[in-house]
Amino acid sequence: MILSALLVSVGINFGLCVIYICLFSILRKLPVHADVYAPRIVAETKNDSTLERLLPSSSWVRMAWLPTEDELLMRSGLDGFVFMRIYIFSLKVFTFAAVVGLCILLPINYMGNQIYIDFFDFTNASLESFSISNVNDGSKRLWIHFGAVYAFTAFVCYLLYVEFGYIASKRLAFYSSSKPKPNEFTVLVRGVPKSSTESLSETVEKFFSECYPTLYLSHYMIYNTSKIWKLLDDAEKIYRKLVSLKSTKQSSQRYGRVGCLGLFGPKVDLVEYYEKELEVLEDEAKKQQSLLNGKASYLLSHIHILSSTLPHSYVTRELRAAFVSFKSRIGAAITLNIQQGQNPTEWLTDPAPEDRDIYWAFFSTSFLTRWIGNVVVVLACTALTILFFIPVIIVQGLTNLYTLEILFPFLKGILNINVVSQVITGYLPSLILKTFLKIAPPVMKFLSSIQSYVSHSQIERSACIKVLWFIIWNVFFANALSGSILYRINVFLNPKQIPSILAAAVPGQASFFISYVVTSGWTNTASELLRLTPLIFSYIKRIFATESDEEFEVPSLSYAREIPNILLFGLLGITYFFQSPLILPFLLVYFCMGYLVYRHQLLYVYSPKFETGGQFWPIVHHCTIFSLILMQLIAIGIFGLKQLSLASTLTIPLPIITLLFNGYCQKRFSPLFKGYPVELMTKKDKRDENDPTISEFREKLITAYQDPALKPIKFSSTTDNINAPLLAFET
Amino acid sequence: MILSALLVSVGINFGLCVIYICLFSILRKLPVHADVYAPRIVAETKNDSTLERLLPSSSWVRMAWLPTEDELLMRSGLDGFVFMRIYIFSLKVFTFAAVVGLCILLPINYMGNQIYIDFFDFTNASLESFSISNVNDGSKRLWIHFGAVYAFTAFVCYLLYVEFGYIASKRLAFYSSSKPKPNEFTVLVRGVPKSSTESLSETVEKFFSECYPTLYLSHYMIYNTSKIWKLLDDAEKIYRKLVSLKSTKQSSQRYGRVGCLGLFGPKVDLVEYYEKELEVLEDEAKKQQSLLNGKASYLLSHIHILSSTLPHSYVTRELRAAFVSFKSRIGAAITLNIQQGQNPTEWLTDPAPEDRDIYWAFFSTSFLTRWIGNVVVVLACTALTILFFIPVIIVQGLTNLYTLEILFPFLKGILNINVVSQVITGYLPSLILKTFLKIAPPVMKFLSSIQSYVSHSQIERSACIKVLWFIIWNVFFANALSGSILYRINVFLNPKQIPSILAAAVPGQASFFISYVVTSGWTNTASELLRLTPLIFSYIKRIFATESDEEFEVPSLSYAREIPNILLFGLLGITYFFQSPLILPFLLVYFCMGYLVYRHQLLYVYSPKFETGGQFWPIVHHCTIFSLILMQLIAIGIFGLKQLSLASTLTIPLPIITLLFNGYCQKRFSPLFKGYPVELMTKKDKRDENDPTISEFREKLITAYQDPALKPIKFSSTTDNINAPLLAFET
Repeated sequence: MILSALLVSVGINFGLCVIYICLFSILRKLPVHADVYAPRIVAETKNDSTLERLLPSSSWVRMAWLPTEDELLMRSGLDGFVFMRIYIFSLKVFTFAAVVGLCILLPINYMGNQIYIDFFDFTNASLESFSISNVNDGSKRLWIHFGAVYAFTAFVCYLLYVEFGYIASKRLAFYSSSKPKPNEFTVLVRGVPKSSTESLSETVEKFFSECYPTLYLSHYMIYNTSKIWKLLDDAEKIYRKLVSLKSTKQSSQRYGRVGCLGLFGPKVDLVEYYEKELEVLEDEAKKQQSLLNGKASYLLSHIHILSSTLPHSYVTRELRAAFVSFKSRIGAAITLNIQQGQNPTEWLTDPAPEDRDIYWAFFSTSFLTRWIGNVVVVLACTALTILFFIPVIIVQGLTNLYTLEILFPFLKGILNINVVSQVITGYLPSLILKTFLKIAPPVMKFLSSIQSYVSHSQIERSACIKVLWFIIWNVFFANALSGSILYRINVFLNPKQIPSILAAAVPGQASFFISYVVTSGWTNTASELLRLTPLIFSYIKRIFATESDEEFEVPSLSYAREIPNILLFGLLGITYFFQSPLILPFLLVYFCMGYLVYRHQLLYVYSPKFETGGQFWPIVHHCTIFSLILMQLIAIGIFGLKQLSLASTLTIPLPIITLLFNGYCQKRFSPLFKGYPVELMTKKDKRDENDPTISEFREKLITAYQDPALKPIKFSSTTDNINAPLLAFET
Repeated sequence: MILSALLVSVGINFGLCVIYICLFSILRKLPVHADVYAPRIVAETKNDSTLERLLPSSSWVRMAWLPTEDELLMRSGLDGFVFMRIYIFSLKVFTFAAVVGLCILLPINYMGNQIYIDFFDFTNASLESFSISNVNDGSKRLWIHFGAVYAFTAFVCYLLYVEFGYIASKRLAFYSSSKPKPNEFTVLVRGVPKSSTESLSETVEKFFSECYPTLYLSHYMIYNTSKIWKLLDDAEKIYRKLVSLKSTKQSSQRYGRVGCLGLFGPKVDLVEYYEKELEVLEDEAKKQQSLLNGKASYLLSHIHILSSTLPHSYVTRELRAAFVSFKSRIGAAITLNIQQGQNPTEWLTDPAPEDRDIYWAFFSTSFLTRWIGNVVVVLACTALTILFFIPVIIVQGLTNLYTLEILFPFLKGILNINVVSQVITGYLPSLILKTFLKIAPPVMKFLSSIQSYVSHSQIERSACIKVLWFIIWNVFFANALSGSILYRINVFLNPKQIPSILAAAVPGQASFFISYVVTSGWTNTASELLRLTPLIFSYIKRIFATESDEEFEVPSLSYAREIPNILLFGLLGITYFFQSPLILPFLLVYFCMGYLVYRHQLLYVYSPKFETGGQFWPIVHHCTIFSLILMQLIAIGIFGLKQLSLASTLTIPLPIITLLFNGYCQKRFSPLFKGYPVELMTKKDKRDENDPTISEFREKLITAYQDPALKPIKFSSTTDNINAPLLAFET
């Protein structure tokens, strides 16, 4: 790619960014858009009139910049805080990289004359003249690159260590300062063994009160409530119809036929008809609820009954899972960390998610089905990641004008126009790739959700890892190692060849990735600020919806979508740092913009839906280590290709040292991200003992993990008040 | 190798075995050899006169065969029981293999005509005519081999599953039936953080009594007692001299010079002199002991003193490690399984070994040094394993007569003699290899001992794994992939090529391995029965030693030496099962002999020195899985080479299924081998509560982990009684 094509791409995207940001600056001041640009403030104040005052007229940049880290931590939780630390960490890394790259490596690269360039025609100069490819073979100047690789690795490792420690300390501080939460005292137990003489609930009660006589508090069985959900869904549909019927003024619409497709049967008063039907459904749902709820409270009150006296419909709906609560945090920790039963596939424990975070599905599966499910999902995910090559190959084709001309000869005329060819080679390819890549996060989230995870946060975390590998493979490797899918897999089946193949392929793609940073990175970040899709939806809703009949919901940040993108840019920066330092300023702009934009979004737009306590950081750490090793492998290959085999050999210890460093970090910090130390737990437990509200908290704890389907319903009583939320549970 | 050479080797070794067994049958009946052939009985009865009666005149085979499994379990512990299960498991596997191999595969192989054989000259027939190499390329008969591979894998996996479950259940039963042991209540804590205001002992006391107020019992600090050990060693030497002086009748020897080398200085009464010196040393040792013991009991009695008032010599010898005991098993389990402190490199816990099993070294090292030490040992071990090639290459050279003739042309005459050449090709190579391999277990044990292990059992287990890989690489791969070391490593850097390279190389070595089974397997087992080395030592001792001045010690079985050997034969059997079924009868003989011999040895010769609770079984399981996968890879390669690519492709899922099966087994059984379930622990704890002896046990528990160097000494009081044991501790 020539420099001018890149400049076109930069120009287009810069323009787009400016337009997006200007639009945002104008639109956000209109109170009518408050639900798009400051939904958190809308939700928090619940008062529209104060809004204008709350949206300050000074620049949004100041609003995003001014709040301290502690305020951010308070408003967006530790996960949001960690998310912003990724930007800070990347900014530190790439500031160092840019100083070294632009001041030292870039001039050295440009001084070489391996690639022919016309010094006077700067605009048409190939970007490769700024890359390591331009340094003469065997040149002693490559030792400077060698030194840079070592220095950069040392610097990044130092930062990784400091950052891991900092986030671990924040996690512990966050834990010890937080108030008692139900999930700290509760574990999810799965694989409760079936017994012929007892109900599952009795088995759980007996097991835990025997093993933990002083610590066990209560348990809450999980039931198969799909039948109740079905009833509630039906009821909700009818309720909606009823609401819209009642809100219409024309009485003619109140009468209609209720037979097949609304075409047959006698005409009836629909309001009356639906009200009756709603009542029937509600009664049935309540009957079902009382069956399960009744038994649950029955057993909670420690009255033991024989299994044979239990109704069959109850027994079949009891699942082999329960939430078990303890009187102290240490009790929950013991059940979590030590094997419970004699059969390791029974009495399996998992940390209970926060009550708002539970994913009420897949509780029913047994150990074996869940294990098989996991295997299947891993296989499906691998297949999907590898076979996603079709759109990528199309994109590859589009970056090459000649391929296009051969495929579509009639386009030759158009393609020869300078602007068109520059748009096609500079902008279009990454746009198409970007569009295709949008599908990945939802698909991966779906795959994660059919694994055995029981909380949205775990699904998000697992999907984040899946998307990360997907994106690294399909953006980085697919573009770097262009060619057939088999060829690419073959590279990795030939471990000895990896460095040289990467070294031959990767530097040539620098310009593509610069263009990718600009199109995907810059524009995405700016459009995140503008929130185009929610803005359009908000207009549509305002036009078509008569009343605000749905509860106003503050959106949450999708970590599975955002983190892999940032990490991919980090990977690009780290791998290209010494080969093509020209990518670094573009990356710095991206990270600066991202820092401001996401800080703004986390403070004013997104509200956290769960709290993992910073468990996303280890993903960032591992990905950075992977990027470093990839960079080092490429360095080994490039020094070899450039006929400086001594430097190549001397780089070989570097990946080994990096891996050892990673091993040490694992030992040093990872345990802190899996649980909490006894020291802190006992401290918190002791503090609780002196807390007068703890007995009240324990009472709440007993019902904290009740299935939403089993909570009391009250459709019929709310039909008169149309504006009430639809699925109205008593709180 | 031709059949006759193999027959010579079999003949020689069969002869050796017969001689060994006959010698054993004769020698064992002589009461004078009782300490070699029945040391356990000698130690147990402590009465020589009854020995003749105790050594029955009926065959030793009956003695080994008759005791039930429960008796074996009682006498040799779960480790000995698991050791014998390896033989039983192997016998089951290879009986099936032999039936399939000899009845179905061998005739098919022999019917092929890929290799030319003279049907009438059977003795000179090449062994390869019985192997898969003889089956015609592309023959449909290979589908029978394909079926055999699948059936064998299914059978072995089924057996593995059953056996893993059986041993896990035995482990749990053993645990729940055993009496309270100190190590069940104790954990070893390392990385106690240093404090400026408290001694380490105070820090430990404070931490555990705060975190576990109801469970914590006591702790025992570990001190650097090297100074005391030095004093005790010196005292022991003088004590020995004194004993020998006192036992001599000639009074002239009682006087001598005590200056430099005993040449200068005035003549003194040596007995008097040594007695005085012994007293001085003993006093010094007692002073040192009281310093540490005093402080220890001081702190044990909960009197807190300021660190500044502690003598400096005490503080410097306090190590950052302690044995912490709890009132219940669950307390110890909590400390073991949940992270204690906020820094994961501090308050590290390990299961306490049995008190007889402690390895009193390397307690002092910090987390970082231990981590680095581990890395260094792993690297050293890998290097040793890979670079052991020199003796193996010599052995390789010797199996080839031509190489020998070229190297030593003057030997040509001798080498051409039929018997000599057959001895050299059939017997000598494996004998040399065997001798070299004897070095491996002690070296690996040394490497394991400088890792951070704190018990002999852990060292043995870790050395067992190291020796296993060493032996598989240096016997199996080195012989199968003969050639330079670099070539061999290259094979594994080329994953796609592994099956075809193995397929080309492995079948050709069948005769070498048959000969290896015969020389190494048969003869070693028979010589294990004869116990040649201890027999010779016992003779030497009887000739030179005047009195039985050393305590009679019952030997223990070295698992690190024996288990890898058995597993290697298992690997040979599994990999050669479908290629060269001729190896199977030889292996069956080996396993039958081993079963009888080691049953006898475990019952009458070896006594267990520690009890890991069957933790050696997972090694056997993993090695069998590895063997299966190796066999499947070779099958993939051979079917490919034999131009039956469909069979080759259809075999590819097999290793994947095997790995999945292994993954399931890991989930299903492995947790049981890492600890014990809460269910059992609480049961045992409850049983203890009703036990009247438990308070007595708890008192003992407090001092159970006292360093032997800190136990009271009484040399001087025992000098009059010469026959007393040397390092006489008060019990």
